[in-house]
Amino acid sequence: MLNFSFYSPTEFVFGKDTELQVGTLLKYYKAKKVLIHYGSGSIKRSGLFDRVVQTLEEEKIEFVELGGVVPNPRDTLVYEGIELCKAEGVDFILAVGGGSAIDSAKAIALGVKYKGDFWDFYDNKAVPKTALNLGVVLTIPAAGSEGSGSTVITKTDGMLKRGLFTRHVRPVFAIVNPELTYTLPRYQTAAGVVDMMSHIFERYLTRTQDVILTDRLAEAALVSIIEAAKVVMKEPTNYEARATICWAGTIAHNGSLGVGRQDDWSTHGLEHELSALYDVTHGAGLAVMFPAFMRYTVDVDVQRYRRLAVKVFGIKDKPKKPMKVALAGIDALEAFFKEIGMPTSFEEVGAKKEDIDILLKKLEINRGSTFGAFKELTLEDARKIYELACK
Amino acid sequence: MLNFSFYSPTEFVFGKDTELQVGTLLKYYKAKKVLIHYGSGSIKRSGLFDRVVQTLEEEKIEFVELGGVVPNPRDTLVYEGIELCKAEGVDFILAVGGGSAIDSAKAIALGVKYKGDFWDFYDNKAVPKTALNLGVVLTIPAAGSEGSGSTVITKTDGMLKRGLFTRHVRPVFAIVNPELTYTLPRYQTAAGVVDMMSHIFERYLTRTQDVILTDRLAEAALVSIIEAAKVVMKEPTNYEARATICWAGTIAHNGSLGVGRQDDWSTHGLEHELSALYDVTHGAGLAVMFPAFMRYTVDVDVQRYRRLAVKVFGIKDKPKKPMKVALAGIDALEAFFKEIGMPTSFEEVGAKKEDIDILLKKLEINRGSTFGAFKELTLEDARKIYELACK
Repeated sequence: MLNFSFYSPTEFVFGKDTELQVGTLLKYYKAKKVLIHYGSGSIKRSGLFDRVVQTLEEEKIEFVELGGVVPNPRDTLVYEGIELCKAEGVDFILAVGGGSAIDSAKAIALGVKYKGDFWDFYDNKAVPKTALNLGVVLTIPAAGSEGSGSTVITKTDGMLKRGLFTRHVRPVFAIVNPELTYTLPRYQTAAGVVDMMSHIFERYLTRTQDVILTDRLAEAALVSIIEAAKVVMKEPTNYEARATICWAGTIAHNGSLGVGRQDDWSTHGLEHELSALYDVTHGAGLAVMFPAFMRYTVDVDVQRYRRLAVKVFGIKDKPKKPMKVALAGIDALEAFFKEIGMPTSFEEVGAKKEDIDILLKKLEINRGSTFGAFKELTLEDARKIYELACK
Repeated sequence: MLNFSFYSPTEFVFGKDTELQVGTLLKYYKAKKVLIHYGSGSIKRSGLFDRVVQTLEEEKIEFVELGGVVPNPRDTLVYEGIELCKAEGVDFILAVGGGSAIDSAKAIALGVKYKGDFWDFYDNKAVPKTALNLGVVLTIPAAGSEGSGSTVITKTDGMLKRGLFTRHVRPVFAIVNPELTYTLPRYQTAAGVVDMMSHIFERYLTRTQDVILTDRLAEAALVSIIEAAKVVMKEPTNYEARATICWAGTIAHNGSLGVGRQDDWSTHGLEHELSALYDVTHGAGLAVMFPAFMRYTVDVDVQRYRRLAVKVFGIKDKPKKPMKVALAGIDALEAFFKEIGMPTSFEEVGAKKEDIDILLKKLEINRGSTFGAFKELTLEDARKIYELACK
């Protein structure tokens, strides 16, 4: 087991009607003027925006609002948010939405407290030292951004998609009401499921041996996500299944399922170029890339893939035929993705084999000529994985 | 699933040589003058105290010290610590030790910031609103106090043992180096194992249905603890097994394995009277009480006990004979406690059947005439459980 630091200071407030606590929480965390940051108008149509605003008014907390966050959130709106916060004296950012709204809010929270260009942080030119406090009302379980120190922003000029990890953007609170996810489109629910499973895979696929407790916790979460996803595809208003997905999505990315081991993140790297070039939903892009990545790396540690197959996908173990078991597990994963309506090939997301050179060029800019930890991938490896995903 | 709040803000710094980071962490958390609080002189003999002090000196952080914490820590030392902190202008408390040192440090941290008698908090006469910041260097994995909001103090006058839960005493950081636990006596290692397993049982034994993710996470931890405990009994310096026990002990009590359900704590209640009256090690007392409690409550939810038996103790499932499976699981738990050298009867800890009336009288003072959630226990139920533990 490697040395590690685990730090997840966010206060998670989980359950029915918990969005009604947002005013009280903001007051507890001493918010005076809040930026409410969100994506489309769906939170207004659903009445969520009004419910949230009412709790702020009850606590006499002022606010301004900025909507319009898009999937794969852009730098342009971040700049707008930073200016707005500075002009209005905002001291707390409240993201209402999914990973995109939260990631955009994190970038604004960093930018308000920084004299230079916030993109410096995403471009590795500066390291964040502080940020405005940030709270979340989650509406899409997927990115785990409500409990993570991660934020991913796309620079419109060149469509560069860059991630950043810093303790300073971990939300001080995150409100998660599974009922708010009842009305998510099937595709978005499924993409969220793939996203959170991927966060666990990026940690599970490790070269670090002997972290059996972390393995078991990760398997417990994966099994529960798969089981619950199958339920919500049939019963979108099944509270227990929605709740399982919501909480699993949070712990999948708050660090608790990865302690003590080197994590990987190469599949996220491969996928980021897909979603940047084609504006593919992140989870859908991961559904395309993960089976390909796994097949390409199965011989790196066949026993690990065998364990995954047996413990998570219920494949019958054959200790003398570990590769067979391992590959059956990957097949089962792909079949599960298809079952919940996710794409598993380039074609299904509008990606083209002819564009692979472009993907590789941008991958090199964003990740360098080699990347990854489970297997150190060269650009040639990346090409082969993209080709595998073409089918 | 019930609504819940999960809040575990502690920064856990885990692994080899991590105690050398204590000075840096104290500086990060703005400590100016520190009380180092500990138990016996073993941290001085082992050199740990000097290593810790050196890192404080390197950061030019002043400190005073107060040793002498005993198992089942007493109010008398807490009063002494509060006076010392006030006299010396201490602004940060560093506990170096196990649950007793940490719990005592928590009481001091509360008392320094309170005008009245700190015991008010433990006596339900006042609710904590703030506390001094607190850090931990853990030497005994057991109580999980390094990551919890719990503290248990014994009032010497009347030997009243009382627990308190408040967010204000969650440590800001906790350093956990599994190597520091290599030299723990076997008995103390085993008692710690029982303690952390009990923290999970108190959450696992619930009437709340449909929290399957939490069930699976709890089972993952239990299986890992049992496996690792068997290893360390034979190889006290097995790093991976020690690390598993250390991390499992932390997550067993930081709340992560209990979300979304009503927890119980009646066995802790029953045990507190044992350890208060006979000064029994808490973990050893729990090893005596848990099999008795489980046998007494097996019919409350035989399917839950059956699941525990199958998933954690590897008992062969017989869906048509759930009680048989359930009882076999409890037998396996008791056998495991014996295997690691723990007592499982009154006699082995010097407790006497004749004293049950005294235990019940104190239980009534501390818990009232009924308590517990898995099964609401009357004092008559408590008597029968104590009698079961007499064998």
